[in-house]
Amino acid sequence: MHNAPPRPDTDRFLADLGDLRRIGAFRTGNHRPTYSPADMEARRWLLARLAEAGLDATIDGIGNVLGRHPGPGPKLLAGSHLETQNQAGWLDGALGVVAALELARGGLPVDVVAFADEEGHYGSFLGSRSFTGLLEEPEIDAARNRYDGTPLRDALAAASLAGLPRLALEEGRYRAFLEMHIEQGTSLESQGMQAGVVTGIVAIWQYRITVEGQQDHAGGTTMAERRDAGLAAVRLLAEIDAEFPRHCGERTVWTTGRIALEPGAPSIIPGRAEILFQFRDIDPATLDRLDGVLRRAVAESNRRERCTARLEVMSQSRPAPCDPAVQDALAAAAEALVPGGWQRMPSGAGHDAQYLARRMPSGMLFVPSIGGISHHWTEDTRPEDLAAGMRVLFEGARRLLAG
Amino acid sequence: MHNAPPRPDTDRFLADLGDLRRIGAFRTGNHRPTYSPADMEARRWLLARLAEAGLDATIDGIGNVLGRHPGPGPKLLAGSHLETQNQAGWLDGALGVVAALELARGGLPVDVVAFADEEGHYGSFLGSRSFTGLLEEPEIDAARNRYDGTPLRDALAAASLAGLPRLALEEGRYRAFLEMHIEQGTSLESQGMQAGVVTGIVAIWQYRITVEGQQDHAGGTTMAERRDAGLAAVRLLAEIDAEFPRHCGERTVWTTGRIALEPGAPSIIPGRAEILFQFRDIDPATLDRLDGVLRRAVAESNRRERCTARLEVMSQSRPAPCDPAVQDALAAAAEALVPGGWQRMPSGAGHDAQYLARRMPSGMLFVPSIGGISHHWTEDTRPEDLAAGMRVLFEGARRLLAG
Repeated sequence: MHNAPPRPDTDRFLADLGDLRRIGAFRTGNHRPTYSPADMEARRWLLARLAEAGLDATIDGIGNVLGRHPGPGPKLLAGSHLETQNQAGWLDGALGVVAALELARGGLPVDVVAFADEEGHYGSFLGSRSFTGLLEEPEIDAARNRYDGTPLRDALAAASLAGLPRLALEEGRYRAFLEMHIEQGTSLESQGMQAGVVTGIVAIWQYRITVEGQQDHAGGTTMAERRDAGLAAVRLLAEIDAEFPRHCGERTVWTTGRIALEPGAPSIIPGRAEILFQFRDIDPATLDRLDGVLRRAVAESNRRERCTARLEVMSQSRPAPCDPAVQDALAAAAEALVPGGWQRMPSGAGHDAQYLARRMPSGMLFVPSIGGISHHWTEDTRPEDLAAGMRVLFEGARRLLAG
Repeated sequence: MHNAPPRPDTDRFLADLGDLRRIGAFRTGNHRPTYSPADMEARRWLLARLAEAGLDATIDGIGNVLGRHPGPGPKLLAGSHLETQNQAGWLDGALGVVAALELARGGLPVDVVAFADEEGHYGSFLGSRSFTGLLEEPEIDAARNRYDGTPLRDALAAASLAGLPRLALEEGRYRAFLEMHIEQGTSLESQGMQAGVVTGIVAIWQYRITVEGQQDHAGGTTMAERRDAGLAAVRLLAEIDAEFPRHCGERTVWTTGRIALEPGAPSIIPGRAEILFQFRDIDPATLDRLDGVLRRAVAESNRRERCTARLEVMSQSRPAPCDPAVQDALAAAAEALVPGGWQRMPSGAGHDAQYLARRMPSGMLFVPSIGGISHHWTEDTRPEDLAAGMRVLFEGARRLLAG
């Protein structure tokens, strides 16, 4: 397609990001819920750009957009998603799609993909799961919009996607999958770094802990007589706070997102407490070890307290390690272009790459997020960081294709 | 009024309690909100019983019912309240009123009182505060029903109480005030005891603690970067749990009734936590000491954590110690009638006696509550415990008058 040596045009890349930002604009961000008119306009915009770039562009029955490179030889797949969370940022997803477009347009044999509904308006990673063979028709039949209850089938019909075939990953076509994304944290920014080579996408193990005690009058019940579910919950969480740092991995995170006491009145001893607790890590052994620490803490609470704590697994996803060779190619590119200004790091949030990683070598490149802001219209990244990330991704892709 | 030596008729006492139980019956309990038709019927029932007993009976402009003993010499005042919480028990309040009636009817020089709205449908201890000179007209003008917003003035008019003068405590008339009440806890029941000589009514010191952190994505923010308001709250509460037992009194109670994390989602680091915390004790020095422990714990949290905890006093009531001589008279009566089956104990809940105690020597006698149940229609006490309590109260009153 090109005679000039492959290279990215970062001005064109930034201009395309700016064009996309105008579709479904919300303040300085975007509001493009999956299959909404704005989302579909963004998909059509991408189809046009892919065709202009000489790719064979198509949209499928779940809304995935794929631009296939017509040339022979080994190829990469690259991309991310186009829809946004409600009233959210302009880069989450869009960045990875436009960067993939620039890889192809800059002269690399790259197929460009925009997966549908990574943001989960209707389901969980519908597009990337469909593409990798992990989405069955009955799930599509049953899925509804999580905000307004619209059936997924109705939304697909309204978006003129009903009846289109669903694209499937072509076995053996790709050497690797690449996804560029904003960090959604402050790790790069706080160290003044421009790129993060992702080691993998963490698993999230989410639990609900319910503590049953005895609701009583706070004045009439002595401390010895009490079965205070709230106090038992606090002691259990303090135990977790003491034990997890002794057993966690270097980048493990754990979070108590909710503590709810019933009935929640000032003069009533809580009869019941509910805790939502999760941890995230990339290493299966660490996940198993922390699950054991949690179970021991609950068992110890049940030996110690006059309340009963019950641990319930809500979900335990799998970690998705990034391919070592893909990591090394991106790391070499980063060291060449932003020497000392990059690090390896896990992704604490989920991405389409975690499903692609089940089918082929996959990797991700992070750029800094200003203030770590994510899923909010103020989300942003400095243009020079976007451009630097684009150059690193391009060079990494070039090395992977050359390797 | 009597020639026979004074003595209580416990069958008559239990029969009267049974009669009162039929007024505003709700399942096995009562629904007599303040100034409701059922409540006013109960007040008229009492006026009739007081008159039958030869007392000079009257109702005042706030709904207080007073039966004045016509004889000369030193007197006691005894009573409690007649209205109930919504759909609540048959003994809370009624027991103390009917027991006072039996003191007078059994031949002791006792004035019988039923204070209005101890249960706080319209205000806080309206009747006993009115009687002791602690309720001003502007407060009556402003008060409204806490459930339906009816102005207190309208309720007084509907109950034909508007315009009646308010009775005031007659200085020097009484040697002491006595109030018999159910325990509303399980302390007596669990030890198989029949009577509790109340040492005082605890003060309640109620606080709100707000912890301000930084709301962030649970996946994108490392443990070191976090400002987790929920975790800071747990650590503060664990510190209170460790420190309070070292500084509390023998019968101090402390309660965290609410912990609320915002936004309360599984994958979001809480940016804000609110805690409702209170402690109760009868001893001012203990209250001050625990206030200091709490303030130190909050200050330590603010030194240690990257979140800011703010302590706010919501209310700090005064403890109302019971008069030692009144306690001793009741204790001697209890030891004579239920030897070994009684104890001294604080009242963890508020009672009319706490306002009377500001104006004269006051005391309370508790009888057991089955299962500690209170403010619920299943509230109950065994008849033999009610009768034993009546005999102890009577003997205690006799000793006080003889002393």
